[in-house]
Amino acid sequence: MRALWLENQRLSLRGDVAMPDPPPNEALVRVLFAGICNTDIELTRGYYPFTGIPGHEFIGEWNGKRVAGEINAICHSCEACVAGRPTHCENRTVLGIKNRNGAFAEFLTLPVENLHVVPDAIAAEEAVFIEPLAAALEIQEQVTVSPDDRVLVVGDGKLAQLVAQTLALTGCELVVVGKHARKRELLERRGIETVEKTSGKFDIAVECSGDASGFAIARRALRPRGTLVMKSTYAGELTLNASSLVVDEITLVGSRCGPFAKAIDAMASRAVDVRDLIDAVYPLDDATTAFGHAQRSGTMKVLMRCAP
Amino acid sequence: MRALWLENQRLSLRGDVAMPDPPPNEALVRVLFAGICNTDIELTRGYYPFTGIPGHEFIGEWNGKRVAGEINAICHSCEACVAGRPTHCENRTVLGIKNRNGAFAEFLTLPVENLHVVPDAIAAEEAVFIEPLAAALEIQEQVTVSPDDRVLVVGDGKLAQLVAQTLALTGCELVVVGKHARKRELLERRGIETVEKTSGKFDIAVECSGDASGFAIARRALRPRGTLVMKSTYAGELTLNASSLVVDEITLVGSRCGPFAKAIDAMASRAVDVRDLIDAVYPLDDATTAFGHAQRSGTMKVLMRCAP
Repeated sequence: MRALWLENQRLSLRGDVAMPDPPPNEALVRVLFAGICNTDIELTRGYYPFTGIPGHEFIGEWNGKRVAGEINAICHSCEACVAGRPTHCENRTVLGIKNRNGAFAEFLTLPVENLHVVPDAIAAEEAVFIEPLAAALEIQEQVTVSPDDRVLVVGDGKLAQLVAQTLALTGCELVVVGKHARKRELLERRGIETVEKTSGKFDIAVECSGDASGFAIARRALRPRGTLVMKSTYAGELTLNASSLVVDEITLVGSRCGPFAKAIDAMASRAVDVRDLIDAVYPLDDATTAFGHAQRSGTMKVLMRCAP
Repeated sequence: MRALWLENQRLSLRGDVAMPDPPPNEALVRVLFAGICNTDIELTRGYYPFTGIPGHEFIGEWNGKRVAGEINAICHSCEACVAGRPTHCENRTVLGIKNRNGAFAEFLTLPVENLHVVPDAIAAEEAVFIEPLAAALEIQEQVTVSPDDRVLVVGDGKLAQLVAQTLALTGCELVVVGKHARKRELLERRGIETVEKTSGKFDIAVECSGDASGFAIARRALRPRGTLVMKSTYAGELTLNASSLVVDEITLVGSRCGPFAKAIDAMASRAVDVRDLIDAVYPLDDATTAFGHAQRSGTMKVLMRCAP
């Protein structure tokens, strides 16, 4: 089959990748669309030493149904699984990220239990956002956000947009700080306040920019006993003033994969709307061009049409 | 009066410091004993640019009563005060740390509201530990610790000892990792398990060692979705792998001043026992010698007798 291949941080389109052969309990899914996530771009920069087919945001077809899929394939028997933390399975493979080929291909395999049927109310291109939307909703699984809270989202990119849309549903006092007029405009259109520079103090700050300067903005904006949610994965180290975290009793929370069912509900009911976030759709054959586009400053989501 | 004076990171005993003149609502407290905390030592290393009398752990006499005192003197009107976070008052002065002379002196002043009467069950030398014991108990104000939790304390020094004793009260599965045989022996005597190297994974890790290597030990010992409590203030930066915090969804919690009333109860009932933690008592006249002793490796609490 055709697939995008990552090896030694280099991407190439290959026409001769072996068709995946699903083991028992796994499904062979025909990929319709797949989305390029910042994590994919970070993989090409060495964030994690993955060799194979990247891509973990997708909608596909299986058994005549349209499906999205949770990306962590788990063992069910390690301590994390038994303790009810399946996304932290010690033996997990992760679609397009760790020991499992991903979605920038004609076909992928995932455990059947990972699949979620996508309702008709959600267009195929939109369904690609189910995975990152679930990740955005993970924040509310970890941190209580109430209407009294002043909440800052740092960044205006595609993840920040989803995070802001989901946080807006809580009724909190929400501000997004971002650099891109066009991206901020998308938020403003939904009634979400945006600024170029923060002022005042916040109860909660969510770092979605994926760099150290964004972290610094989030940290500075927090009141004592505030909570800083770290939502971006990226290569590199972060330098903190440890004492200031102690003196101000700051809480830092790392946040990753989230609840698919809630994401599907939020999208199907249009509580969250991702249609404006798609900047381009490329055929799989143009995958490397699509990656180039996704990395241009100011770009939102770039999709690949994987089915021929 | 006589007092220990800190200026440009240098300590000197002075005989001619002006007697403090308490403003309305403040008490003039005659200091009986004061304890040397690592924060005091860090002040002499430039952790915070304080000039004046250091010292914030004390027992004193006021109006014929023995009293301990909360160290943050607050304004009652800033956002933090109004929001019920008095220890984070934006206009606070802090005894012996920030804009307020401290306890290594014959007398100190504090707002009357900061004072707590020390019950007879607590000896004067023990009462010096009320402030750090309250700080140890702050952990349980911030993080739920249950008997099911595996909890690691990193460090075996004086703060770690109090933290371990308070955590043991929760019935959790507690392990202290430390380097000093004598200090570990103090914990073992109380039935608290100690190790020189950690093994296995923990739900909660409390960093009490005050250095970056201790932080690294705590981080490595945590299971995914674990909580790392940072209990030490010290100068210097901390370098983190941001992505690993995100991928493992780790929570970091800075922790500072805590509940005095609970500390007094725990000490009065002997749920916590600090008597073995006192290594030496020096008269105030030997304050610089006392500081030298406190900085020697392996030393636990060094007290000063401040009343003549």
